[in-house]
Amino acid sequence: MASCRYSARTVVSVDVKKKAWEQEQPLHNRWHPEIPPVAHVATGELFRVESLDWTGGQIADNDSAEDIKHVDLSRVHYLSGPISVTDTDGEMAKPGDILVVEICNLGPLPGDEWGFTGTFDRENGGGFLTDHFPHASKAIWHFEGIFAQSRHIPGVRFPGLIHPGLIGTAPSHELLHIWNKRERDLVESSTDAVTTLATVLHTRPLALLPTAHGALLGKIEAGTPLWEGVAREAARTIPGRENGGNCDIKNLSRGCKAYFPVFVEGGNLSMGDMHFSQGDGEVAFCGAIEMSGFLELKCDIIRGGMEKYLTPMGPTKLHVNPIFEIGPLEPRFGDWLVFEGLSVDESGRQHYLDASVAYKRAVLNAIDYLSKFGYTKEQIYLLLSCCPCEGRISGIVDIPNACATLAIPTAIFDQDVRPQRDGPPRSPYLVQRGDVSKCAYDGSLPITKNLALS
Amino acid sequence: MASCRYSARTVVSVDVKKKAWEQEQPLHNRWHPEIPPVAHVATGELFRVESLDWTGGQIADNDSAEDIKHVDLSRVHYLSGPISVTDTDGEMAKPGDILVVEICNLGPLPGDEWGFTGTFDRENGGGFLTDHFPHASKAIWHFEGIFAQSRHIPGVRFPGLIHPGLIGTAPSHELLHIWNKRERDLVESSTDAVTTLATVLHTRPLALLPTAHGALLGKIEAGTPLWEGVAREAARTIPGRENGGNCDIKNLSRGCKAYFPVFVEGGNLSMGDMHFSQGDGEVAFCGAIEMSGFLELKCDIIRGGMEKYLTPMGPTKLHVNPIFEIGPLEPRFGDWLVFEGLSVDESGRQHYLDASVAYKRAVLNAIDYLSKFGYTKEQIYLLLSCCPCEGRISGIVDIPNACATLAIPTAIFDQDVRPQRDGPPRSPYLVQRGDVSKCAYDGSLPITKNLALS
Amino acid sequence: MASCRYSARTVVSVDVKKKAWEQEQPLHNRWHPEIPPVAHVATGELFRVESLDWTGGQIADNDSAEDIKHVDLSRVHYLSGPISVTDTDGEMAKPGDILVVEICNLGPLPGDEWGFTGTFDRENGGGFLTDHFPHASKAIWHFEGIFAQSRHIPGVRFPGLIHPGLIGTAPSHELLHIWNKRERDLVESSTDAVTTLATVLHTRPLALLPTAHGALLGKIEAGTPLWEGVAREAARTIPGRENGGNCDIKNLSRGCKAYFPVFVEGGNLSMGDMHFSQGDGEVAFCGAIEMSGFLELKCDIIRGGMEKYLTPMGPTKLHVNPIFEIGPLEPRFGDWLVFEGLSVDESGRQHYLDASVAYKRAVLNAIDYLSKFGYTKEQIYLLLSCCPCEGRISGIVDIPNACATLAIPTAIFDQDVRPQRDGPPRSPYLVQRGDVSKCAYDGSLPITKNLALS
Amino acid sequence: MASCRYSARTVVSVDVKKKAWEQEQPLHNRWHPEIPPVAHVATGELFRVESLDWTGGQIADNDSAEDIKHVDLSRVHYLSGPISVTDTDGEMAKPGDILVVEICNLGPLPGDEWGFTGTFDRENGGGFLTDHFPHASKAIWHFEGIFAQSRHIPGVRFPGLIHPGLIGTAPSHELLHIWNKRERDLVESSTDAVTTLATVLHTRPLALLPTAHGALLGKIEAGTPLWEGVAREAARTIPGRENGGNCDIKNLSRGCKAYFPVFVEGGNLSMGDMHFSQGDGEVAFCGAIEMSGFLELKCDIIRGGMEKYLTPMGPTKLHVNPIFEIGPLEPRFGDWLVFEGLSVDESGRQHYLDASVAYKRAVLNAIDYLSKFGYTKEQIYLLLSCCPCEGRISGIVDIPNACATLAIPTAIFDQDVRPQRDGPPRSPYLVQRGDVSKCAYDGSLPITKNLALS
Repeated sequence: MASCRYSARTVVSVDVKKKAWEQEQPLHNRWHPEIPPVAHVATGELFRVESLDWTGGQIADNDSAEDIKHVDLSRVHYLSGPISVTDTDGEMAKPGDILVVEICNLGPLPGDEWGFTGTFDRENGGGFLTDHFPHASKAIWHFEGIFAQSRHIPGVRFPGLIHPGLIGTAPSHELLHIWNKRERDLVESSTDAVTTLATVLHTRPLALLPTAHGALLGKIEAGTPLWEGVAREAARTIPGRENGGNCDIKNLSRGCKAYFPVFVEGGNLSMGDMHFSQGDGEVAFCGAIEMSGFLELKCDIIRGGMEKYLTPMGPTKLHVNPIFEIGPLEPRFGDWLVFEGLSVDESGRQHYLDASVAYKRAVLNAIDYLSKFGYTKEQIYLLLSCCPCEGRISGIVDIPNACATLAIPTAIFDQDVRPQRDGPPRSPYLVQRGDVSKCAYDGSLPITKNLALS
Repeated sequence: MASCRYSARTVVSVDVKKKAWEQEQPLHNRWHPEIPPVAHVATGELFRVESLDWTGGQIADNDSAEDIKHVDLSRVHYLSGPISVTDTDGEMAKPGDILVVEICNLGPLPGDEWGFTGTFDRENGGGFLTDHFPHASKAIWHFEGIFAQSRHIPGVRFPGLIHPGLIGTAPSHELLHIWNKRERDLVESSTDAVTTLATVLHTRPLALLPTAHGALLGKIEAGTPLWEGVAREAARTIPGRENGGNCDIKNLSRGCKAYFPVFVEGGNLSMGDMHFSQGDGEVAFCGAIEMSGFLELKCDIIRGGMEKYLTPMGPTKLHVNPIFEIGPLEPRFGDWLVFEGLSVDESGRQHYLDASVAYKRAVLNAIDYLSKFGYTKEQIYLLLSCCPCEGRISGIVDIPNACATLAIPTAIFDQDVRPQRDGPPRSPYLVQRGDVSKCAYDGSLPITKNLALS
Repeated sequence: MASCRYSARTVVSVDVKKKAWEQEQPLHNRWHPEIPPVAHVATGELFRVESLDWTGGQIADNDSAEDIKHVDLSRVHYLSGPISVTDTDGEMAKPGDILVVEICNLGPLPGDEWGFTGTFDRENGGGFLTDHFPHASKAIWHFEGIFAQSRHIPGVRFPGLIHPGLIGTAPSHELLHIWNKRERDLVESSTDAVTTLATVLHTRPLALLPTAHGALLGKIEAGTPLWEGVAREAARTIPGRENGGNCDIKNLSRGCKAYFPVFVEGGNLSMGDMHFSQGDGEVAFCGAIEMSGFLELKCDIIRGGMEKYLTPMGPTKLHVNPIFEIGPLEPRFGDWLVFEGLSVDESGRQHYLDASVAYKRAVLNAIDYLSKFGYTKEQIYLLLSCCPCEGRISGIVDIPNACATLAIPTAIFDQDVRPQRDGPPRSPYLVQRGDVSKCAYDGSLPITKNLALS
Repeated sequence: MASCRYSARTVVSVDVKKKAWEQEQPLHNRWHPEIPPVAHVATGELFRVESLDWTGGQIADNDSAEDIKHVDLSRVHYLSGPISVTDTDGEMAKPGDILVVEICNLGPLPGDEWGFTGTFDRENGGGFLTDHFPHASKAIWHFEGIFAQSRHIPGVRFPGLIHPGLIGTAPSHELLHIWNKRERDLVESSTDAVTTLATVLHTRPLALLPTAHGALLGKIEAGTPLWEGVAREAARTIPGRENGGNCDIKNLSRGCKAYFPVFVEGGNLSMGDMHFSQGDGEVAFCGAIEMSGFLELKCDIIRGGMEKYLTPMGPTKLHVNPIFEIGPLEPRFGDWLVFEGLSVDESGRQHYLDASVAYKRAVLNAIDYLSKFGYTKEQIYLLLSCCPCEGRISGIVDIPNACATLAIPTAIFDQDVRPQRDGPPRSPYLVQRGDVSKCAYDGSLPITKNLALS
């Protein structure tokens, strides 16, 4: 039938009812040049990739955060791919090229239209505000088409800016070596400088170094010497790096074009960690609305693109970053309430132009403010981690204070949260009301003010 | 005549032909509770405030950066105010209230429609990228209504998102004491942590402590004991702080409502440092399109607003920050090109979740990329400091990498700067072309590729 | 499985491989109160409705317009429904209520991602510009996720603003009678006034009166006396009316809430005629990107809403119209090129404040202008009918000229179509180039300048 | 002083305290090729033009509509200009060229920051809804920077989308002859067609033919034979025509570029009738927020542009219309409430694809709906005429019904006007409240529900 040729060809499919390591097309949760491609696509071809949620199904749709508390963080980011790309003449993408990836569409997997947002326990993962919120918590979201709502955070509803938290090309051996060395240096150096900052921000590990524990390496057969060798040196997937990776950029959504450097033959594109929505910073760490999902993609190759467009800085020729163009279909919001933060921490201590501290303060200011409208602070922490709020570096030169701002679209609330002469409602709206809530059109959902807590 | 009652009442006017310290209504360049108000307004009243550019006229419209190089940074931020606010019953704003300030309009001073952007010399001020761009430079912009263009950076033109770089209420004695202590602690502690970061980012001073040198204290008569006392402890104006101040938030523009904490009777609102346009971060330090200008404002008071809406964090009741609502008249851009940066510095060294380093890398990536279109890197550095680009904290939890993004509206260029298969133009557009340029409608402007350099 | 409960329940499904009259759930192509509901939903429930394209599959994906030329217009608008709505207490929607319909999501049917735009032959349907374009033509579009592109109109690509061309509640007997009477009066009166206008605009019939020929009446068994009676008086579906219907409002898209008057028990909501994209006015008549598709909907009831919100005008209590709120996910465009038209027709004749004539002139002006960039006029006519262009009534009081404007987003073209000093390209871009086109990423598509013509 | 060269050169100034015919630079209120230019500008030059309000000061800021009722409509549209344009070589714009006019900025005249909206009496001017609102009415607006508010329509406040209602080039003799002939034909033919439509819509005159009464002809000395000849044949300014003119396009605002055909040497650009804000259609006729104002403009010439870009339709080479690009600084609104209208008039009579009737019904539906929130219908009629609402031609082919929509930004109201389950407030907000209103920050303004009525 004529129309069929237009449908995207599915190159990676997943079954959410199976374990991550039992999928028909093997997934992977490490970055390594030797992980072989599971699919091949040509430039100009529309193809479809499905992926599990980032925990590979460890988290359930229920009212307890026990699963979040005990999540195994060595077994996360089950990536779909690698996908090898050729041009229409059959020539593979080559190191030095730029791989153009257009996100033509993306969304939750049909039949699996729900997601979760959580904060990890301080002892197992932590998060941006772990010193304030040390315990695991969880909110379940369900999707009504373009909208998300949660029985755990009633009174809010917003359209998703769906995106892959993680997408990138495979590193070369040389690049992998650079990653491993610099991250090990960070952990081992443990200078005052680093530990001071880490103490202010978190008590989490500084970096996650390679470990064979929990490694899943795609088509590489477990137990073989190859597996052992790769597992020992393959990079963990938590941070974004030169190849893209887990950048958690919320605007990498419908209609975006991303430009990735190519480090190995074929480019070997992998992706996963789909987010229905995320706030800038994804502050709760497990902080987007995490879900399984699909992407429809189209690739192109800019031959020699790295030399044409990306001049590496520093000692190697590999020190580059992806760039992208924002798509035309982001949600439109009219009104934004903006919170400022400066690089003075909660104890009153002055930091020097530290945008991370400033952003932390902006987020804390927003949490405090919004909790006056009937929410617990935990609820707002989760909300600001996953709703489409914008985190800006406003001033970064006015010594000694960096100034960061957090802008929140007011339309996501079904009450007016702007400052009024009379102050916030005395008996807050969420307590007062019965069933009149944007998120409670479906009367069957229990409205509870309390998050799932571990 | 009937219509006259609608015009804003001018409460502070300036004469750009006079020195900052010779103005009829005395200006001030320090924060101190004892600086007396120069004007009084009532809530609901529309009033007009004029201000000098932030250097008080030290910079000239010419093709040399000598004035930037030798600028006297102890004599900057000449503020208009303080303005004392009462309600319609004649009751003053009181400590604990929130002062609502609506920016009904703002713009350049009629007859003075030009501005400048500069980078300071490493030895005198520096900037976010001082290690890469150690010399003073300057670009002059002139305004055609809503648009800015520069003979020093041809081929770009954009609408201004005009805003006051600096606006805030007066601190109380107690708050002033907190500021002075914490900033002195920073300078004197000089821990490894701080100096390491400072070394990576800049070689500038860590903070500017109070000094009588260059102080201008409004109506306080110079030479008096009061003047000496105030000058010795009054806070410098470079950083934003709890009172607002030099936050350099580019979205504080037409139609915004800002909510400031009140620390002294009357609120004592001051402002200045007008910007025709600024990029998030204002990376070049003297980095907006700096200009003289006017604001039309209207105030309201939320009685007891700090208790109602702002819960101080930390050891004092003063540790709060302003909030604001974004106005409805920001420029609309369709396409954005986005650059990523991670917290790995140019030497390849790994930093721990440092959004400042990540943003620096995003800016450097953008400078490198855009310089391939016929610009010098100095031109792009200045451009990204002052054009309406957005700096986002995209990921702040993916240890060890913070991910920052810099989004640039492509419509500000009169060439297509998106990546193409063929790479950037071989003989860059700016060299090739004769007169066909958005910014060269006025054929009388010399098009030079070279910035004013010191 | 927990997540399943969140998926929309499918209440009407279609099989695009079957004829419209052979579907499992019977469709209907007339409006009549006696057509029984095929499905029942409760308020707050998320449900899914599938629909055929408006011709019920008469048009094929090929390069000939013969099928458009000979389309049977008595057999169109195969609607999915009626759907009866109850509240959560099981009480049906009642006449006088308002039925709130939220479009939570919508899109093409998976596996059928293509559409068509056509102009009818003057002798069989015509269109807004039938006097200029009397022959049938057709363009096939295929979808790449959110984007549409056509091998028949190369060099354009745009995100869809997907919407149902037709959605509405069932009329009561009384309302149906009003419709039939006033439309028959129009046809029969044939005053000078009407025929003059009709002559200027089109040579099509003035209205399509009820006819049993081609009628499909849902669950009513064909051949029965009931069928005969209903078929004889049921209203045709071409025009929009008080119940909504074929309003062809392009902004009725993702996230919209529409408020429909209820005229019969249960409301009896029907819909169909899905559009991937449409320009304001849908000028080519078969003029959107016509497709099969699905909608995910959620209903609410405002009891007594017609009295609360809608005051009927005129002699009956039924003379009301739906209202709606625009959703948050419309495509964002930066630049618009706008064409004006006045109520002076192409012969130079002056009409009196006639917005239809003015809009016709605006469209003709745009067609003429854009045809200078390498397109045929037929191509632009189809393009302006289906791309997301905006048709505005700018001035309607400046006697004798109405002023209408047509705004076209320039980003849909892969060349710059704004006026330049040098004029449009001498050898137009579409002729010159080989494969460098937004819509030609897929090198397998033949680029032809010629539309499918009958 | 260096900066001064950047200020716009004022080429036409007005004194609002003087009569229109007593201005230093003579104004004109007719279109004629013989009216000599009052100023000359070069391409690329930034220049400033001031203009009186369209009535030339006939309307006062008070609470009576007597002045509106008795306004002299033969003495309106006092235009500033003509302005003759040369290129930088001193060559004038020539017939056949396109004159590019960039609106760099515009606004109310300093010191005259107020405006008015009115409906004319049925016997003197009328309006789009004159059959429903036959009496003169008036609302006074005052401006607070970018915002407008009215003591006569409390509870609304919105940013202005400032634009010249009238701007255009001078016609040639040939074009003038065409205008006069076709408009006279309209008046004299008086076919059924026309009178029927005119009766449905209004009872106003069909067109305003040339008359020497009230004519003001710029530098042409009154009483001379030249004056008599020109006055007798010069075109009235009410309608927009091929030269631009009174098109009342609300989006012709800051940053727009308009492209006008040139019919006489120098182009001879004139403008006036400044609007602080207007809804699409300007339905009340005197319907924008009418004010005096200034424009800062810059011109360019596309030589031979008419042949390059504009192909005349019909019997003459003059039958063309301006085009324009929308500027980047339009107000941003998040939520829109949309009203539909079909081409069935209030009596229930069916019209054939008549977009004017459909738009009339959409406006009437909106008036009815919004009047339930505490407003009189007269207030809403005026509001919809002047607030930034959008009038769309949604469907123009679905015989016999045209479908027009009117979209209203909900943020202009200080109450929530969207439909709710409980219906509109029983004791409408405007009655209930005391002083808490967006428009009542200035407590000195009396809040009255009643418009100024004649």
